[in-house]
Amino acid sequence: MANKLSEARAELSLANRIVANEGIIDAFGHVSMRHPDNPKRYLLSRSRAPELVTPDDFIEYDLESQPLRDPGVGQYSERVIHGEIYKTRPEVNSVCHHHCPAFMPLLATGTDYVPIFHLGAVGGIRPPFWDQHDEFGDTNMLVVKPEEGASLARALGKHWMVLMKRHGVTVAGTSVKDCVFRCVFSARNAEYQVRSMAIGSNVASLSPGETQLAGQISAKTTGLTRSWEYWSMRVANKGGAAPAAKRSSPARAKSSKKPKRRPAGKARRR
Amino acid sequence: MANKLSEARAELSLANRIVANEGIIDAFGHVSMRHPDNPKRYLLSRSRAPELVTPDDFIEYDLESQPLRDPGVGQYSERVIHGEIYKTRPEVNSVCHHHCPAFMPLLATGTDYVPIFHLGAVGGIRPPFWDQHDEFGDTNMLVVKPEEGASLARALGKHWMVLMKRHGVTVAGTSVKDCVFRCVFSARNAEYQVRSMAIGSNVASLSPGETQLAGQISAKTTGLTRSWEYWSMRVANKGGAAPAAKRSSPARAKSSKKPKRRPAGKARRR
Amino acid sequence: MANKLSEARAELSLANRIVANEGIIDAFGHVSMRHPDNPKRYLLSRSRAPELVTPDDFIEYDLESQPLRDPGVGQYSERVIHGEIYKTRPEVNSVCHHHCPAFMPLLATGTDYVPIFHLGAVGGIRPPFWDQHDEFGDTNMLVVKPEEGASLARALGKHWMVLMKRHGVTVAGTSVKDCVFRCVFSARNAEYQVRSMAIGSNVASLSPGETQLAGQISAKTTGLTRSWEYWSMRVANKGGAAPAAKRSSPARAKSSKKPKRRPAGKARRR
Amino acid sequence: MANKLSEARAELSLANRIVANEGIIDAFGHVSMRHPDNPKRYLLSRSRAPELVTPDDFIEYDLESQPLRDPGVGQYSERVIHGEIYKTRPEVNSVCHHHCPAFMPLLATGTDYVPIFHLGAVGGIRPPFWDQHDEFGDTNMLVVKPEEGASLARALGKHWMVLMKRHGVTVAGTSVKDCVFRCVFSARNAEYQVRSMAIGSNVASLSPGETQLAGQISAKTTGLTRSWEYWSMRVANKGGAAPAAKRSSPARAKSSKKPKRRPAGKARRR
Repeated sequence: MANKLSEARAELSLANRIVANEGIIDAFGHVSMRHPDNPKRYLLSRSRAPELVTPDDFIEYDLESQPLRDPGVGQYSERVIHGEIYKTRPEVNSVCHHHCPAFMPLLATGTDYVPIFHLGAVGGIRPPFWDQHDEFGDTNMLVVKPEEGASLARALGKHWMVLMKRHGVTVAGTSVKDCVFRCVFSARNAEYQVRSMAIGSNVASLSPGETQLAGQISAKTTGLTRSWEYWSMRVANKGGAAPAAKRSSPARAKSSKKPKRRPAGKARRR
Repeated sequence: MANKLSEARAELSLANRIVANEGIIDAFGHVSMRHPDNPKRYLLSRSRAPELVTPDDFIEYDLESQPLRDPGVGQYSERVIHGEIYKTRPEVNSVCHHHCPAFMPLLATGTDYVPIFHLGAVGGIRPPFWDQHDEFGDTNMLVVKPEEGASLARALGKHWMVLMKRHGVTVAGTSVKDCVFRCVFSARNAEYQVRSMAIGSNVASLSPGETQLAGQISAKTTGLTRSWEYWSMRVANKGGAAPAAKRSSPARAKSSKKPKRRPAGKARRR
Repeated sequence: MANKLSEARAELSLANRIVANEGIIDAFGHVSMRHPDNPKRYLLSRSRAPELVTPDDFIEYDLESQPLRDPGVGQYSERVIHGEIYKTRPEVNSVCHHHCPAFMPLLATGTDYVPIFHLGAVGGIRPPFWDQHDEFGDTNMLVVKPEEGASLARALGKHWMVLMKRHGVTVAGTSVKDCVFRCVFSARNAEYQVRSMAIGSNVASLSPGETQLAGQISAKTTGLTRSWEYWSMRVANKGGAAPAAKRSSPARAKSSKKPKRRPAGKARRR
Repeated sequence: MANKLSEARAELSLANRIVANEGIIDAFGHVSMRHPDNPKRYLLSRSRAPELVTPDDFIEYDLESQPLRDPGVGQYSERVIHGEIYKTRPEVNSVCHHHCPAFMPLLATGTDYVPIFHLGAVGGIRPPFWDQHDEFGDTNMLVVKPEEGASLARALGKHWMVLMKRHGVTVAGTSVKDCVFRCVFSARNAEYQVRSMAIGSNVASLSPGETQLAGQISAKTTGLTRSWEYWSMRVANKGGAAPAAKRSSPARAKSSKKPKRRPAGKARRR
């Protein structure tokens, strides 16, 4: 079990670095995974940019997005995005929240995302929009309260992607690799879709049948393996000093004492 | 002969890395070459991103896109793109299939590619379009079946480029260097053409006479040599860890026993 | 005190490198800070590109933008931009002047900057414009004279950003980190806003309430810390030869003799 | 004298690498300088991408663009661009020919270049266009014949830049540094101008008075020095293997025997 958890942490750490390296995430955003041994838990890094996340940075959360142990470090304030989706979607094992530039024009103009090339099928046809203001009025637009995360999860429904107006995107996947694959190729598709719209009003997209079939490319071909190898190598080749792994790492379970639960609404730390 | 094959593998490996480094190809796409010693064979890498391809990765195929020996590794499912073109075009000795972002707006809007600067002549004037849906209805849009590859080769005709709607592009060349030159400069041209269209409806292009003459720049000047040197140096300067060359390399011919032929339709591996 | 000054120089040097590395500044532009020990002084580098600035490069200025000591090196001719803002805005402790490409379309078309995603709130809603020609007619468009800097500071008013038509942008912050945070995320927002306008005329923005609340994300969450760590690591990973620190460094105060004051109008050195 | 020539070669080599590194030039394009000791000569590299040019690569040409000595290596076929301008413009000491992507939309749509920010003044207001087809009909669009270069020089006139339709740009400068400064900032301006036009039809530009004054920033401020230091450091930081300096270097004058003059029209080598 420990070995499986160890591998899971390594994969999730790499996933965070991949989405940063592929231009999906900058300082803000995060990738989580459902705990490999317990579907009522998920793993999410402490508060740091995904590009810097190491296997030691992960905090174990319950689905209320409360840490199992006092991590002793800053946490992402938007972690309810992850917990609420894990609650409603048993088949989802990984979630990514990002502010990828490619999506911004779609979000700002309320333009539906449509797959315009086969790999863009991973985002589906016209995934749902969500706007925090609709239910919650003026906020600082961070999805912090459980009810805000629950609202977002409702908007996501059975889809793989929800477009958060004036904010960013949240993507769900059946595994970490699947989630990353969807993040990257939906972002590419969004980029191409926006560029196409700038030169023509009639933008061809995949049919529903094609979307359904092409959406399975990652599951049914070596495409996922090949991409993961490619993206991993690009992260490795980027080089650079490894970020400090042990500094302020979340405290490991030395005692079984749980921390006093802080209502998510109070602790507005990111 | 062995030396010629060895040089061919080195050049083809470098070609794969060049098209990746110049932004033409990412995780998906491939560059092949007709076998230097046998026009009924061609060389194509095992299934991995072109940026990672090494000389040991190449599999020898017949023109039905069947491997001569069981490679023991994943193969590109879209290899029929290459085989079918080698069948119909005796003068073509290299083929590249890619999803270059620069072309996506042209593909999505059905806009003809036209050379707008002299080096864009390599793509020709208004190269043909092809849409898998026309003949095959809803598919996952990968060109996997021999009849799909044959359809694409028919669309390519005598041209050097075919634009695959909602998918990508396939480029043919008289040599590996010629193919790469066409890939890079048609992509640059596509980029410029799209940017131009965003600011003006009247985009000047080369005349047919100019296209024909300028299209010979790579053959008749030191332009090809200069570009190849430049691109090679950029690949060399990129550095980074060399990808694992021997891991899962296609098995070399130790026995002359051919593998049982799998119908390309069945083995939907990429 | 010396330690505080030493830390301040290190932070300001890193800030200069961050804004260069994040694409906000190229050869031209600068980041300054109010002196940590004396509100009537500020620190600004000698004339060199921000990417190359080291802690030894800083010159101490009074608020008339006169150097306390003869620096013996070239100075930024546009330093009055900084001094005049420090005069009028006691709560501002850092100023950045840049020509970030993302803003150019807004400047050239006189389009108001509006936050279109939550982090863009840092620029405010419709920050003021300023055009040197209005008060000063034909000039070389460098803000060199005290009256030109004063005019710009008046236009900035109580805002955090002023858009300088046909020139660039000046950003104010309560600290160096706050100033950098505003620079980076307003630039990202400007980029997204321009891209959105290219595909739709109705671009959704934050409400005034959201802008006010989201504008506090950096002050009230770990977002600023996380971003700073991220940007610092990216600068560190960039590597490369450290620029010459001691060459032509501004002379340290060995004597208390002040240099003869040169009217800023005369010394048109950058 | 030898020392001055040695320094000139070093500066020109660095200039070639700078324009490549700043995105102005890729495989094609070149930067030359008038010989520091003889106004009837100029220095231009043998045929290789500017990013790879070393001080040993320069060939000495007369103003008819004939090499003083047989270089024994491939030469740029478009060198008459340089020679013809050196003939007609005594104050010009450096010329750059490039295909910078930023200009392509202006060239393709016949849109005048206008300075939209102060540093764009280096290109002037509405620099002239030139189209090879006007005088020469269908060609391969390389400027190879003396009469083609002379035609281009006539179009340049007293300007600092000429826009070559469906081809690229040629820039003149009073020195190598001045020429590079003009190349870089006119390219930035072109980029901004095109992006601005995509969102608004009314693009503000500099007045003639501002253009004239701002056009002197490089000559009258430390801006040129600062930029050159910045660009040089970026080239140095790029690292990578130095390209082979001695391989096929142009032969140095060991004998005074001049090569048989080949009419520029015949030797269509690049």
